[in-house]
Amino acid sequence: MSNLQNDLFLRALNRQPVPRTPVWVMRQAGRYLPEYRKVREQAGDFMTLCRTADLACEVTMQPLRRFPLDAAIIFSDILTIPDAMGLGLRFEAGEGPRFDKPVRTAADIEALPRPDPNNELQYVMNAISVTRREIDGQVPLIGFSGSPWTLATYMVEGAGSKDFSKVKGLMFSEPVLMHRLLEKIAVSVADYLNAQIEAGAQALMIFDTWGGVLSRERYLEFSLHYMQQVVDALARTHEGVKIPVVLFTKNGGQWLDKMADTGCDALGVDWTTELSVARKLTGGKVALQGNLDPSVLYGSPESIQAEVKKVIDSYGTGPGHVFNLGHGIHQFVNPDNLAVMIESVRALSSTGE
Amino acid sequence: MSNLQNDLFLRALNRQPVPRTPVWVMRQAGRYLPEYRKVREQAGDFMTLCRTADLACEVTMQPLRRFPLDAAIIFSDILTIPDAMGLGLRFEAGEGPRFDKPVRTAADIEALPRPDPNNELQYVMNAISVTRREIDGQVPLIGFSGSPWTLATYMVEGAGSKDFSKVKGLMFSEPVLMHRLLEKIAVSVADYLNAQIEAGAQALMIFDTWGGVLSRERYLEFSLHYMQQVVDALARTHEGVKIPVVLFTKNGGQWLDKMADTGCDALGVDWTTELSVARKLTGGKVALQGNLDPSVLYGSPESIQAEVKKVIDSYGTGPGHVFNLGHGIHQFVNPDNLAVMIESVRALSSTGE
Repeated sequence: MSNLQNDLFLRALNRQPVPRTPVWVMRQAGRYLPEYRKVREQAGDFMTLCRTADLACEVTMQPLRRFPLDAAIIFSDILTIPDAMGLGLRFEAGEGPRFDKPVRTAADIEALPRPDPNNELQYVMNAISVTRREIDGQVPLIGFSGSPWTLATYMVEGAGSKDFSKVKGLMFSEPVLMHRLLEKIAVSVADYLNAQIEAGAQALMIFDTWGGVLSRERYLEFSLHYMQQVVDALARTHEGVKIPVVLFTKNGGQWLDKMADTGCDALGVDWTTELSVARKLTGGKVALQGNLDPSVLYGSPESIQAEVKKVIDSYGTGPGHVFNLGHGIHQFVNPDNLAVMIESVRALSSTGE
Repeated sequence: MSNLQNDLFLRALNRQPVPRTPVWVMRQAGRYLPEYRKVREQAGDFMTLCRTADLACEVTMQPLRRFPLDAAIIFSDILTIPDAMGLGLRFEAGEGPRFDKPVRTAADIEALPRPDPNNELQYVMNAISVTRREIDGQVPLIGFSGSPWTLATYMVEGAGSKDFSKVKGLMFSEPVLMHRLLEKIAVSVADYLNAQIEAGAQALMIFDTWGGVLSRERYLEFSLHYMQQVVDALARTHEGVKIPVVLFTKNGGQWLDKMADTGCDALGVDWTTELSVARKLTGGKVALQGNLDPSVLYGSPESIQAEVKKVIDSYGTGPGHVFNLGHGIHQFVNPDNLAVMIESVRALSSTGE
């Protein structure tokens, strides 16, 4: 970090004062960018793009060239761990992810290996180290993983799901088995994120995309408990520098109080919970990241600016806010509208320091 | 209501004391029942089943023959109004609903007719009156509609959606148009529900399946505002008997306070919000209906009973609870497990009166 030129993002995560609110965007390297689509086409398929360090680095860098963003996030997928466990990840056109070998039985769970992040997942570490070199200290690089519960949903369902009947069926009918599965995943997530720190990730984010489909009680027992295990197992400093950790449960607004007690540094918040409410719920224990509805970017420049202002005003004064969307940027958004959003954050959050 | 033999459901909605908690289940007439699948197959397609009063009556009655339920809900679809507006509703196998003519422009919106519920939607009224006769006072019959916002999402998207980019795009870029669309829908929903009361519906439920994808501010402006208009326009008594109205916004747990102020009688609650929390938020203004996770029905009889007890205990003492799932029953649930749930509610909620 010796040569980090813009540390606003890390300072905000650590709730230190900043002259303006830092901003990055979930899925900022992605399909809404024509230059991404070009590289994606060259790569042939999505996992080849993830597995080829130079290409993953290239698409990670693309949004930084267009927009004055305050962080980069390594281009990868949340399902790399189950893939490394041998489940056979495939992306069918227009279908979302699928696993050839879903996990359904006690034998399936016991057979799951603990992937070596510096072997089966070496490609992610390569992408991080190549990208750190390429970024050259412009902004920090974020590493990430899916949460244990979220990975388990895909592993048990074998694909995306609308009602999560298989994974919830397992949870309700065989809770001991479900816990065994989540324990194994949590160990691998911690291994994976610690290796990302070693490879050069300067902050970490855990995406719990599907924790919000649980009741509070089940969320605490089957999702947050395992994110807690991961947080506890992480190296929180690297070469003397703190590595902040962000937890994000989509539709988890009602459980932010409990999430703030894990010892993480920041929480992602989606647009269904106002930042003012999130701040009250978390009582200053953590920084907050969010929370513009990605659909705002379909509106006019004036309406984008007005909605950005509402988010900034809702957070209010004091440090600890990282501006972001409340979920990944949509595929069909005009990149010019993202530029308007970022410019609005920079203009409206400036304290004039 | 002169001959209503079981009025527990209506009394609970009116927050009157009951000897045990009444129970019914969203989508209780549906695909999880083999006898439903048989009639559905005979009918050929889904809309024929809805449009044929004797068949709609038959499938409405089926769950009452199997289970000691405390209410029936007329078998129909939430998209009957846009269909009556001429959008051309189709159900593709495994695809969910689609409209041939989605609504996208000012001209599309202006062209939308106000359907006459006793003409284009007469088939629903026929189904209700035939079913009232057939139920013969065993339990009350519930009528329903989709909420204006929820109908608008399907009308603008033209189908189900994951990110609601088209309808939110319209909302953010053309809010005046969006309001015009919602006003037209709200008038038609009120017409439709009032006609259902005339036809024999003894309680009404408004399903806001997609209000939960909005921010609080947008929810209040674009969804709840129009449910309020509908509630205000409803005949709340029929032949001297009160007609209770239930509002249900899926993933709307954070807005129950505002929903309770509409003057409705009860709120549906999903499993992501504990009933104890919902009760605090609504301060005794309304009854509450819910909120077992439908996936609990994949578990063992013992776990179903334990989860039912948690819901009943979370509501606590005093009147005003109608037991239900927090969303529709899943297609692949074993009907025997629903029997366990209903039996558990009856056993565990009995006050011994």
